[in-house]
Amino acid sequence: MLDLPFLPFCVLLGGLGFMCVAFVSAWCQHWRGGFALDGSAQTFNWHPVLMVTGMVVLYGAAALVYRLPPTWSGPKLPWKVLHGALALAAFGLAVLGLAAVFRFHNDHGTPNMYSLHSWLGLATVLLFSCQWLAGFSAFLLPWAPGWLRALYKPVHIFFGSTILMLSVASCVSGINEKLFFSLKNGTTEYKRLPAEAVFANMLGLLILLFGVLVLGALARPSWKRPDADSPDSCQ
Amino acid sequence: MLDLPFLPFCVLLGGLGFMCVAFVSAWCQHWRGGFALDGSAQTFNWHPVLMVTGMVVLYGAAALVYRLPPTWSGPKLPWKVLHGALALAAFGLAVLGLAAVFRFHNDHGTPNMYSLHSWLGLATVLLFSCQWLAGFSAFLLPWAPGWLRALYKPVHIFFGSTILMLSVASCVSGINEKLFFSLKNGTTEYKRLPAEAVFANMLGLLILLFGVLVLGALARPSWKRPDADSPDSCQ
Repeated sequence: MLDLPFLPFCVLLGGLGFMCVAFVSAWCQHWRGGFALDGSAQTFNWHPVLMVTGMVVLYGAAALVYRLPPTWSGPKLPWKVLHGALALAAFGLAVLGLAAVFRFHNDHGTPNMYSLHSWLGLATVLLFSCQWLAGFSAFLLPWAPGWLRALYKPVHIFFGSTILMLSVASCVSGINEKLFFSLKNGTTEYKRLPAEAVFANMLGLLILLFGVLVLGALARPSWKRPDADSPDSCQ
Repeated sequence: MLDLPFLPFCVLLGGLGFMCVAFVSAWCQHWRGGFALDGSAQTFNWHPVLMVTGMVVLYGAAALVYRLPPTWSGPKLPWKVLHGALALAAFGLAVLGLAAVFRFHNDHGTPNMYSLHSWLGLATVLLFSCQWLAGFSAFLLPWAPGWLRALYKPVHIFFGSTILMLSVASCVSGINEKLFFSLKNGTTEYKRLPAEAVFANMLGLLILLFGVLVLGALARPSWKRPDADSPDSCQ
């Protein structure tokens, strides 16, 4: 498509990922009252920050590890460990992000798991936990035979992109939902598009752009390992 | 991945697409009061039905035309016309779907274009209009030289998948938003998960599944035209 080398693209993508984390943190700090661990609305604020940082930005970084040319030669194990560790860190942040919203709901007597956002978000994290466990068992533990790795690899790749797509859809629906919850009164009503609404809508678009760029980079043939489809690359 | 041939997959996907259209129609007919053209809430109900039918189901069908093995040999023009015509029909339904929500908002004095859902949805339809015009100009009009078609083809393919991803994210955020708007009172409150909420949440998951399957089918190497990357395939 565009003849952009992978490493400058990574720098741009890193900047965009940093902006996503900065925007979601600034939204929660400046407009939603900051952060706490006491079950209040400030506890809820960890939810968007941890989900965007974990399920979008760190997840995207983990997904792109094998697009780095140094991973294409030499021993694979260090890169596998890096891929698995980044994904595990992303999963850890997602679990903490879920704990934040459940704690907030439980302390306020609000039911959990009723909105489409919550169904989709939890399904995404559960799918991610299966993906991590299956990837760890098949590619990092030594027992899996080559034919099983070769069989599972395209499934792992397919669900890798799918989970990122579901994460992005969860974030967009969550930001939209939160703004309808929070912006209700007078001049700050969502439909009057106050500064907070413009800022958080832009956060949603940045997350979408980040997700689309990661998925595009994953799909781009010239950035794949040259022997990506050979059985040996599954070892 | 799974060794499923393309045509049985298409039958399954067609059934899933039909279920998406049936679910969104049943939701609007049974719980939201049906359809009208008078600017009332029944006018709004055309919006979800037309967007899901156009931007997800018909769009997905258009995207998959070149995965049909009969398109890989013989004259390309009839298949190009089919691809373009399905996409144009999808775009037409999307424009009518936008007209329905603008009419409803304007008749009720509700501002347009403030929520993240509306920003994302309109951006998706605008991107689709550019995609259709550029595709028509490059691939259906006879003037475009081969090198331009070869240059533009991967861009068209990338934005083809991207627009479907954005459509699905728009639908999910829109269904979530509509349920918070509509389910407010007593036993029908969204957080009490009445039958309508379960039904519309399931609609959201069906749309996501449809989108993921179409994107997976588009990405699957063995379902692509064997010479898909040769310059000749852009003619």
